[in-house]
Amino acid sequence: MQSAPLTDRATLLVKCEDRPGLVASLAQALYGQGANILHADQHTDTDTGRFFQRIHFQDPELAGPDPEAACRRLEATVRTVANRDEMSWKIRYGQRAKRVAIFVSKTEHCLYDLLLRHRAGEIDCEIPLIVSNHDSLRPVADQFGIPYHWIPVTTKTKAESEARQRALLEDHKIDLAVLARYMQILSAEFITAYTDRIINIHHSFLPAFAGGRPYHQAAARGVKLIGATAHYATTDLDEGPIIEQDVIRVSHRDQPKDLVAKGRDVERTVLSRAVRWHLEDRILVDQNKTVVFAA
Amino acid sequence: MQSAPLTDRATLLVKCEDRPGLVASLAQALYGQGANILHADQHTDTDTGRFFQRIHFQDPELAGPDPEAACRRLEATVRTVANRDEMSWKIRYGQRAKRVAIFVSKTEHCLYDLLLRHRAGEIDCEIPLIVSNHDSLRPVADQFGIPYHWIPVTTKTKAESEARQRALLEDHKIDLAVLARYMQILSAEFITAYTDRIINIHHSFLPAFAGGRPYHQAAARGVKLIGATAHYATTDLDEGPIIEQDVIRVSHRDQPKDLVAKGRDVERTVLSRAVRWHLEDRILVDQNKTVVFAA
Amino acid sequence: MQSAPLTDRATLLVKCEDRPGLVASLAQALYGQGANILHADQHTDTDTGRFFQRIHFQDPELAGPDPEAACRRLEATVRTVANRDEMSWKIRYGQRAKRVAIFVSKTEHCLYDLLLRHRAGEIDCEIPLIVSNHDSLRPVADQFGIPYHWIPVTTKTKAESEARQRALLEDHKIDLAVLARYMQILSAEFITAYTDRIINIHHSFLPAFAGGRPYHQAAARGVKLIGATAHYATTDLDEGPIIEQDVIRVSHRDQPKDLVAKGRDVERTVLSRAVRWHLEDRILVDQNKTVVFAA
Amino acid sequence: MQSAPLTDRATLLVKCEDRPGLVASLAQALYGQGANILHADQHTDTDTGRFFQRIHFQDPELAGPDPEAACRRLEATVRTVANRDEMSWKIRYGQRAKRVAIFVSKTEHCLYDLLLRHRAGEIDCEIPLIVSNHDSLRPVADQFGIPYHWIPVTTKTKAESEARQRALLEDHKIDLAVLARYMQILSAEFITAYTDRIINIHHSFLPAFAGGRPYHQAAARGVKLIGATAHYATTDLDEGPIIEQDVIRVSHRDQPKDLVAKGRDVERTVLSRAVRWHLEDRILVDQNKTVVFAA
Repeated sequence: MQSAPLTDRATLLVKCEDRPGLVASLAQALYGQGANILHADQHTDTDTGRFFQRIHFQDPELAGPDPEAACRRLEATVRTVANRDEMSWKIRYGQRAKRVAIFVSKTEHCLYDLLLRHRAGEIDCEIPLIVSNHDSLRPVADQFGIPYHWIPVTTKTKAESEARQRALLEDHKIDLAVLARYMQILSAEFITAYTDRIINIHHSFLPAFAGGRPYHQAAARGVKLIGATAHYATTDLDEGPIIEQDVIRVSHRDQPKDLVAKGRDVERTVLSRAVRWHLEDRILVDQNKTVVFAA
Repeated sequence: MQSAPLTDRATLLVKCEDRPGLVASLAQALYGQGANILHADQHTDTDTGRFFQRIHFQDPELAGPDPEAACRRLEATVRTVANRDEMSWKIRYGQRAKRVAIFVSKTEHCLYDLLLRHRAGEIDCEIPLIVSNHDSLRPVADQFGIPYHWIPVTTKTKAESEARQRALLEDHKIDLAVLARYMQILSAEFITAYTDRIINIHHSFLPAFAGGRPYHQAAARGVKLIGATAHYATTDLDEGPIIEQDVIRVSHRDQPKDLVAKGRDVERTVLSRAVRWHLEDRILVDQNKTVVFAA
Repeated sequence: MQSAPLTDRATLLVKCEDRPGLVASLAQALYGQGANILHADQHTDTDTGRFFQRIHFQDPELAGPDPEAACRRLEATVRTVANRDEMSWKIRYGQRAKRVAIFVSKTEHCLYDLLLRHRAGEIDCEIPLIVSNHDSLRPVADQFGIPYHWIPVTTKTKAESEARQRALLEDHKIDLAVLARYMQILSAEFITAYTDRIINIHHSFLPAFAGGRPYHQAAARGVKLIGATAHYATTDLDEGPIIEQDVIRVSHRDQPKDLVAKGRDVERTVLSRAVRWHLEDRILVDQNKTVVFAA
Repeated sequence: MQSAPLTDRATLLVKCEDRPGLVASLAQALYGQGANILHADQHTDTDTGRFFQRIHFQDPELAGPDPEAACRRLEATVRTVANRDEMSWKIRYGQRAKRVAIFVSKTEHCLYDLLLRHRAGEIDCEIPLIVSNHDSLRPVADQFGIPYHWIPVTTKTKAESEARQRALLEDHKIDLAVLARYMQILSAEFITAYTDRIINIHHSFLPAFAGGRPYHQAAARGVKLIGATAHYATTDLDEGPIIEQDVIRVSHRDQPKDLVAKGRDVERTVLSRAVRWHLEDRILVDQNKTVVFAA
């Protein structure tokens, strides 16, 4: 499909029950394969006994004459270790940038933030399409040369609209859907089909002010900080695994419109961080929580 | 009772419905009295039409031969203006440090933070007593030379214990009670008698994780920040007007004991800030929210 | 030139030696004029004896049939008070948005941030032109419909280029020039002509790492935070009055390109805040320092 | 000397030139020894080609009948790997808490912060002595039951005083000296003898405001943030490897005494963090910079 930019980098993510020797057996397996580990993060939750590891490594054969064969060999090696220790694992190769669809409604700040960081090289992915239930943000898509798909959503057409959305995602082999202030609720089927592959931004510090109009809730309660939460979408609305959160200070001087403006800053920052970490394979989801091996 | 340290400083706090000329009439009244305004903060909530002002000023007569008469003159002047414009107001004189009672249970970090800042001159008040339902922190009180009153509280003795606590507050002419991780719930009568004069620290970012064991709730939900909230105690538990909040970053590496340790840092900071602002008459409460004219 | 949007709001900024009665006489003068004070911030530096005040007020006559006459009356009133107390003062009327020229070179993040906030209504001004020594950012200007003036600068053409720049600023009645990562040094004449009206962003936490390549300096020194500083340009490079600063955490994992990326975030935030405060007349410069009455 | 609390935990720190297989050979060596890796942090600086790793592991034999023999076996194993790959390495055993001497002058806030965190179990070490050139803080030491050594320092007695200090450190087998606002400059000999084992707190955001009276420098320059820097002491004053930095926001309202008060908060926080990371063997020093594997 896309021509593979040759690179010898790959990332391995692993989770399983902890037991002695896991680090050694993975490191040994990679070394036996001729790989050199560049960054390794590892975490054992001593309460739950769960083991998590992220290994970013270099394997010269991946940039060699037969990268496909190199991948197969590598995966066979990891599979052997993983089966022995009942690991859940995945490898992502540097050759292949993840493919991201951005969903928006009428609000532009999160979209711009993602597109500008993408252009600046901070967010490493392909963005083959933007999907929206409104036509409003088409000019932004045009500026960045990204196809814009306007799929209106009404109560009556919802099922059909979703079918069109999902067909788009499949046609474009989308790995990650980012809900960048997309103001529609996706069906359980959609979400389940993309488990841990849909990132949503909620404009509050969850679990405070879950649900609608969080800035008005915040103003009514007189809080001194407002926040934003990026999480993987689940069928329990606003209850998915939290990836990142941040807050910004507010005061009695801030009227609702000021809260909304401050909120924009923290929303776009938090969402972009979450997307970047996902794209760099820094996130492991386990039991509705995330382990984020942030840079 | 205490010998009045002579000072010519005073602070006037005012709230009322907004109307033209409020700032002018107050400034004019003070000027007519011979006072010089050092700091003035003013806020009009254009949504609710409420007016708030804090004026910190210098009046040479307050440090003159007859400070009592100076106070009476000043108050008569302000009363005249205030009655005309239906202002709610109070004046606090620099002569008289507020008198603070600190309530604790077994946890020392908030107590130490308050006492050290008090000794460093950051918190300007007198602390005539520490009250506790346990004897554990008596040595801390002793180090700082502050009388420690151990009043055990059980379900059976609760009413009687509270009566003793309230008698202590009255005997010592206490202006402010600080619940520095005091793990007992005060009765509605107690709280009502000290409306806007009891500051509590809740070890979460309210309204998230209200109620007990907030760090365990936070860990279970996998949040990426934990916080603390200082608020005036009201009969609705954890629902009082918020004075200050702050957060600290946590990660998957933080076990419950680490959350508790990080929480201590943010709790003590938030509580001490709230207490300082109260003592400096920087807080106006209106309709379950605060206006804080922070320095 | 532009049609005046009718508004009854104005802002008065005052600085002078402190003396009793300043607040009262200003408030009284405005009240006598029929004005209602919405927000008043006042600060007396008790060390230097300097008095600073910002008064944001409503004067119905400013939106009346003869706003010009209303302005003249208002200014005559303020002048009388100001002359008596040797105040330095200025009034800005809501009718007239400030006119801003943005100077850029090749870097887009600060420019985008300003333009997006402008479009979102966070930054209240007109932006009649963008000036650059490169043609690179013309497409950005086009997207937002703002005329783009490409004026190349070489050592030889510098004087002539500056003459063209200054002519543009004069022709467009520019109130504020924002150097949004403009990589040329302006002449002393230029800067002097626009004293306290040129805002620059320096990509370090000044005074640390003044001069060029601050991220490389920071990396070499192994600092744990990097920052940005917005200041008014003066003829002493990087020594002008600081308006705003902020920092972001970095670690050994951050390579120079990561520092640059993190720096972009803090630069754009700091610059936009400084510009907003300037446009809202929140900044008073005194003796190479600023008093910022931030919202 | 102290009775070893039995524990099976240890931490291995390694630095060397990067080459393939380092992670695997260390992990394999530990696994061969029967050890289980709990946390592993690893970093390769791709610019300099330097490799850094911290491995926290469990080795049941360390808590077995012959811990000394277990240590010897473990070290022999690591030495073999390390020699082959020219690693610089050290192991710290959980049995043996590090021994810390705190140096103070007259300022108490950093001392209290360390002692309270120590008592709360946040800082895992023994503190056999406090050294001071003044007698002022003896009562604090007494409260926490720690011997206090008053060694006055004058220009004339400096050499002799340092000899007494160093004798104390040797007698008490001190691993780390913490200069908690100790206002004397140590000799080059002293510092060299304790390379990377003396932590100092500088009350500014280095390299800004190096040298004396940084808060006055900061006030004079009108900065909007003040900071603190914890670093290892070197013979180049204020130039040692930076361990941690943080800042706090200040404004025109802050007079020098307020800057000092805010500075206390950030100083104590930064110093305590640096001390904790050192005690947990999270810091590797390389070429005047630190790699901090923070929790």
